[in-house]
Amino acid sequence: MTAQKKLKMGMVGGGPGAFIGAIHRNAALMDGLIELTAGAFSSNPEKSRQAGEELMLDPSRVYSSYTEMIEKELDLPESERIDIISIVTPNNVHFDPTKKALESGFHVVLDKPMTLTYEEAQELYKIIQKSDKLFCLTHTYTGYPMVKQMKQMIAQGAIGEIRKVYVEYPQGWLYKLLEHENNKQAEWRTDPARNGKAGCFGDIGTHAFNLAEYVTGIKVAKICADLDIKVEGRPIDDDGAVLMRFENNASGILTASQIDAGCENNLKIRVYGDKGGLEWQQEDNNSLIVRWPGKPAEIYRAGTGYLGSLANENTRTPAGHPEGYIEAFANIYRNFARCIYALRKGEEPKTEWRDFPGAEDGIRGMAFIEHVLASSASEQKWTPFVVKY
Amino acid sequence: MTAQKKLKMGMVGGGPGAFIGAIHRNAALMDGLIELTAGAFSSNPEKSRQAGEELMLDPSRVYSSYTEMIEKELDLPESERIDIISIVTPNNVHFDPTKKALESGFHVVLDKPMTLTYEEAQELYKIIQKSDKLFCLTHTYTGYPMVKQMKQMIAQGAIGEIRKVYVEYPQGWLYKLLEHENNKQAEWRTDPARNGKAGCFGDIGTHAFNLAEYVTGIKVAKICADLDIKVEGRPIDDDGAVLMRFENNASGILTASQIDAGCENNLKIRVYGDKGGLEWQQEDNNSLIVRWPGKPAEIYRAGTGYLGSLANENTRTPAGHPEGYIEAFANIYRNFARCIYALRKGEEPKTEWRDFPGAEDGIRGMAFIEHVLASSASEQKWTPFVVKY
Amino acid sequence: MTAQKKLKMGMVGGGPGAFIGAIHRNAALMDGLIELTAGAFSSNPEKSRQAGEELMLDPSRVYSSYTEMIEKELDLPESERIDIISIVTPNNVHFDPTKKALESGFHVVLDKPMTLTYEEAQELYKIIQKSDKLFCLTHTYTGYPMVKQMKQMIAQGAIGEIRKVYVEYPQGWLYKLLEHENNKQAEWRTDPARNGKAGCFGDIGTHAFNLAEYVTGIKVAKICADLDIKVEGRPIDDDGAVLMRFENNASGILTASQIDAGCENNLKIRVYGDKGGLEWQQEDNNSLIVRWPGKPAEIYRAGTGYLGSLANENTRTPAGHPEGYIEAFANIYRNFARCIYALRKGEEPKTEWRDFPGAEDGIRGMAFIEHVLASSASEQKWTPFVVKY
Amino acid sequence: MTAQKKLKMGMVGGGPGAFIGAIHRNAALMDGLIELTAGAFSSNPEKSRQAGEELMLDPSRVYSSYTEMIEKELDLPESERIDIISIVTPNNVHFDPTKKALESGFHVVLDKPMTLTYEEAQELYKIIQKSDKLFCLTHTYTGYPMVKQMKQMIAQGAIGEIRKVYVEYPQGWLYKLLEHENNKQAEWRTDPARNGKAGCFGDIGTHAFNLAEYVTGIKVAKICADLDIKVEGRPIDDDGAVLMRFENNASGILTASQIDAGCENNLKIRVYGDKGGLEWQQEDNNSLIVRWPGKPAEIYRAGTGYLGSLANENTRTPAGHPEGYIEAFANIYRNFARCIYALRKGEEPKTEWRDFPGAEDGIRGMAFIEHVLASSASEQKWTPFVVKY
Repeated sequence: MTAQKKLKMGMVGGGPGAFIGAIHRNAALMDGLIELTAGAFSSNPEKSRQAGEELMLDPSRVYSSYTEMIEKELDLPESERIDIISIVTPNNVHFDPTKKALESGFHVVLDKPMTLTYEEAQELYKIIQKSDKLFCLTHTYTGYPMVKQMKQMIAQGAIGEIRKVYVEYPQGWLYKLLEHENNKQAEWRTDPARNGKAGCFGDIGTHAFNLAEYVTGIKVAKICADLDIKVEGRPIDDDGAVLMRFENNASGILTASQIDAGCENNLKIRVYGDKGGLEWQQEDNNSLIVRWPGKPAEIYRAGTGYLGSLANENTRTPAGHPEGYIEAFANIYRNFARCIYALRKGEEPKTEWRDFPGAEDGIRGMAFIEHVLASSASEQKWTPFVVKY
Repeated sequence: MTAQKKLKMGMVGGGPGAFIGAIHRNAALMDGLIELTAGAFSSNPEKSRQAGEELMLDPSRVYSSYTEMIEKELDLPESERIDIISIVTPNNVHFDPTKKALESGFHVVLDKPMTLTYEEAQELYKIIQKSDKLFCLTHTYTGYPMVKQMKQMIAQGAIGEIRKVYVEYPQGWLYKLLEHENNKQAEWRTDPARNGKAGCFGDIGTHAFNLAEYVTGIKVAKICADLDIKVEGRPIDDDGAVLMRFENNASGILTASQIDAGCENNLKIRVYGDKGGLEWQQEDNNSLIVRWPGKPAEIYRAGTGYLGSLANENTRTPAGHPEGYIEAFANIYRNFARCIYALRKGEEPKTEWRDFPGAEDGIRGMAFIEHVLASSASEQKWTPFVVKY
Repeated sequence: MTAQKKLKMGMVGGGPGAFIGAIHRNAALMDGLIELTAGAFSSNPEKSRQAGEELMLDPSRVYSSYTEMIEKELDLPESERIDIISIVTPNNVHFDPTKKALESGFHVVLDKPMTLTYEEAQELYKIIQKSDKLFCLTHTYTGYPMVKQMKQMIAQGAIGEIRKVYVEYPQGWLYKLLEHENNKQAEWRTDPARNGKAGCFGDIGTHAFNLAEYVTGIKVAKICADLDIKVEGRPIDDDGAVLMRFENNASGILTASQIDAGCENNLKIRVYGDKGGLEWQQEDNNSLIVRWPGKPAEIYRAGTGYLGSLANENTRTPAGHPEGYIEAFANIYRNFARCIYALRKGEEPKTEWRDFPGAEDGIRGMAFIEHVLASSASEQKWTPFVVKY
Repeated sequence: MTAQKKLKMGMVGGGPGAFIGAIHRNAALMDGLIELTAGAFSSNPEKSRQAGEELMLDPSRVYSSYTEMIEKELDLPESERIDIISIVTPNNVHFDPTKKALESGFHVVLDKPMTLTYEEAQELYKIIQKSDKLFCLTHTYTGYPMVKQMKQMIAQGAIGEIRKVYVEYPQGWLYKLLEHENNKQAEWRTDPARNGKAGCFGDIGTHAFNLAEYVTGIKVAKICADLDIKVEGRPIDDDGAVLMRFENNASGILTASQIDAGCENNLKIRVYGDKGGLEWQQEDNNSLIVRWPGKPAEIYRAGTGYLGSLANENTRTPAGHPEGYIEAFANIYRNFARCIYALRKGEEPKTEWRDFPGAEDGIRGMAFIEHVLASSASEQKWTPFVVKY
């Protein structure tokens, strides 16, 4: 039997100045299961080359385009070839590289949202279903151990039948027309051609939606949205709120904003059932507040001995040694890698490892954008939430 | 010139076991401006007598009904007669005693909401407008110094043009059918005949609504509500959420619940303008978080030297000596008393003293209940919010 | 049987501009058991008169000195005479009025520390022991419900044998020579003739010491102090730390400072036993953090149903309606009043009511000052803590 | 010019079940500057081999001892040979591998404390001074961006002349005789032969001490310690407190405990100068509280635009995306690697990169242990703190 080798990864996008590409690399590398071997870091060949050099890659593995990367890598012997393609480009360059990568036999990690349009998502969903390769969509927040604990406690009935979900995602960075001040992030995030037709709700509203369905394990059945553009001159939504009803009739409120001046990124979710409540927020991500009627609230903490298997499989440090955003991201990469290894060995991966976001999260996220925009434009209160697969 | 004397107060309701009556008394007495002189503490004469004895009142000033109290007090010489009538009965006994008290020449403090029905509120509003006596409605939360600071900062433009308001009022005490377990509070609060046709939204939704309009100084223009009964067998709403647009087109989200299991009473409001944001919550009522884009957030604290006049006139202790709910209540009573004294002396009361809730807050609160129920029942998204005075 | 009447109180000190006098009045009045009837509010007769007028007292009950107050009140029939004398003067005017008041048959509430000197304290202690009148020393912080809960849980063995006590009292208001800037509080607090020979440790160090012995129920056995004057030109200590060992050999650390620039008044105590730990701080005074090895920490909250009798008897509001500093103060006054009533009826007061600070706390506090100064001046590490009664 | 290559690292210790070895690997790998190439993971050859296999190393680079690793690696051509040796063994195996590694021409990262004994530290200090290789000691907490911000603000005089330092390190995991319950960590941590003669103060007291000197930039001049063994049957200290005076006469209080039942790892430091104060704690590591007399406190946050260069060079994510313990660790590795690269290129590394702990921190930490034990045993209050280099 041959010894196991690190998984080789090629990256699409993530060149100089890109925030999320660097985070993907930190996350992929941290646990020593994946190494960065190749990349098409920019559509500008010189910028791609430069990024490859900074990342100390073999220049022969640095490409000018993802198409070139896929072709050339396929020419390499399997033992040298990359195993995973990680795609961290703006949303308009999600569909095509993912399709090509999967169809060429690579596992794919894709930054969310899945695609530029709902139509693309529907098509990609089918491609993923047919592929025997693994697909992962980085809905980061589901990678936090205490979010996973929340999911597991709810699934086990700890707080009873779910009645109420509050999820909020307040940011403030787009409180003014930053996209006119030479800010690259702001430019593409507010450009429908690159970001898709929803702004704030494409970028972070989808995270909030995904988190709500993830932790409750219950699907949204209908919504009532009120989106708005608060900064004059911006073409797409920068703020909004959505009333929701879940399939079990639980009520939900989802808010997302990029104009809550001074707010950073404190995604927060609270879920109440008929026996108790659970509250988590990213700013204090290693804690989970557990509320009980008539008894003291409890503070569950990451890295302790009393947590469930989902949290445990996604923790690196003992209690009181805070993990954070990059570790949440790394949990997604690590679980993805663990599943690939299991696949190779012909073993069934642990349930906890398979708990990373994928095609289902992706298409539902794109459907959410579609429905939220439709609902916001509608004079009817309720818009049924029906996903076309 | 005669020396000033303490104001004499008679109370309607607030007998044995009533929570809010005792709080009114703590609040009224604390500052030494008001003394409790008379009372009709219960519609049960024996219970009223007993309450009077416990409160160490002169038995001749303890009455069997508010009607009797008003009549008998009018028979006393003015120097002995009560000045203020404080009404702390269930909502179905708000209109009549208030009307009678005002028309008999007493100043009135009334526990919120103003009346049982919107129609009563419209009539009472007119009565109050015509009266030369002062009327105060105890929307307690507007009595907190840092809420007042928030109002003053917004009025002075500190955070710019208001774009977004989040207000939430999560309670959990009615997470089960407590009203079937011999709990008096729960019984009348869930009984439309005594509480009015809205449950959670009559009791605490109105507080949240009042707070939002109070701190922003902007009126709500339209709403979209989704109320629900989460506990089977309960006749009125125990949970809900409301999308709002203000007159300046700012967006708002108001949530109120009595079934968020394990939650206590953490009323919270956050307001964002185009320059910054302000965040306050009752659990940390002596702090006000002030957020700025690109600069560190600040923690404004009650009792410090850098606050505005509204907060200063409503603070008793230096920074770090926490005041709380009873002091917020006492601020309302103190300002009310200060205005009565000024009135007597023929002086204009300070602007800061006149800042206690009254008829306008009352009728708008009742209109809120009316509109929220209508909107919740409607299939249309938006219901215009139009108050009939 | 005659009906019970409100207790009548006369105040010594607490004239215009005095912070603590006003707090005493808020606290005494709030619960309707005590009324302010008389006062010698200032050694300046005109100022005393003016204070009496502002407080709307009968001018015949406003005196120029406590001596006059005691004499004149004794001339009144018992039913009109004051019952309680509340003394809120600077420390150099504690001993004499307390002695005279007790010996003249009045119950006494005295602001802490008990006296100017340890010698006075020893003498006063004997006087109190001999008196059949009640004596109360306002170590305010022992009045907080969650501090009382802490005491009760420890007494019941909830956290096992006590091993470790941290108590800290950080203030910053004397970070500069405020006493040279016409600040009255700063002037007398830093003047040994009025404040006593310890500065910071007389004012707030004694509170920290009292709190530590109160919640643990264990006495301090030896200390090692390092006091210092951090602001040049100040005659007495403004900062310090004390290592302690308790009688059961538990270790303690006590710090107090008035030069921790920017700090307000966040007195904090943490106690760990061999089974768990308890943490309380004034800034979040309605919570008590309860820590357990291997289990989630719990947040005990004031006003809930699961607390012990000591907390319950000292709470006015349901959970989530914050009480604060004035209520803690009022708890001391209320318990004091309840005991006087019980005494009058010849009944045994409840244990919970007798839990207010008195002579023992007073003399130990003065001994603490004495020992801390001696230890700080000593080159020996440990100074035994031996109180001479 | 040849392209830069990743630095190759060999690890000593960190085999199966070792907590800190895994953290070192996460930290070293995260930023893509270092790769794990070799290891002597255990003194048990089979365990070392097994660890190497799990880490997917080339079996020819997995060794049975550090001696073997050093020898064999020296036989390899320089381009293949490891550059860095990372030593993560118990304290009794720190001196020898570090000495050998440096003298054989490898850069060294060593887990703290530097050595088993003060004498070893003195010798190693000289060896490091003579070596032209880089030496790094992982005092992790100095790697946090907001700790670095604190250091930089103090150095720039933001809070004025330092007067007061509080540093505390409360843990609870050794609240019982865990070392008798087959817990490996507890076993060696409480065994003087492997851990050194101080228990709690060797393990975490040294971190607290290092942090205090790091952020203030001022050396400790004298100490007064009271250490204790709270759990019967344990041979070395598990709790203690130290009064300190710094060279500028600032006062300090340092506490460390492993018996504060229920506490995790919330290292906390607060520093006050004559202009303001700074407060940081690990549980909220991305915030720095900045206090000002007479002005609102500010919350400085990691990843924002208003921080200094020291914080900026040690941050990966934008504000609101929490980094944590592993990133703090990774900052030390990244700065170490950046300096090696600079060295190679013959460039001067940035000041901010050179800010990682080294020999000076190491010897002072060992001196701290020595002095704390001496002081604790002494009857004299003060023990001068004099480091012999």
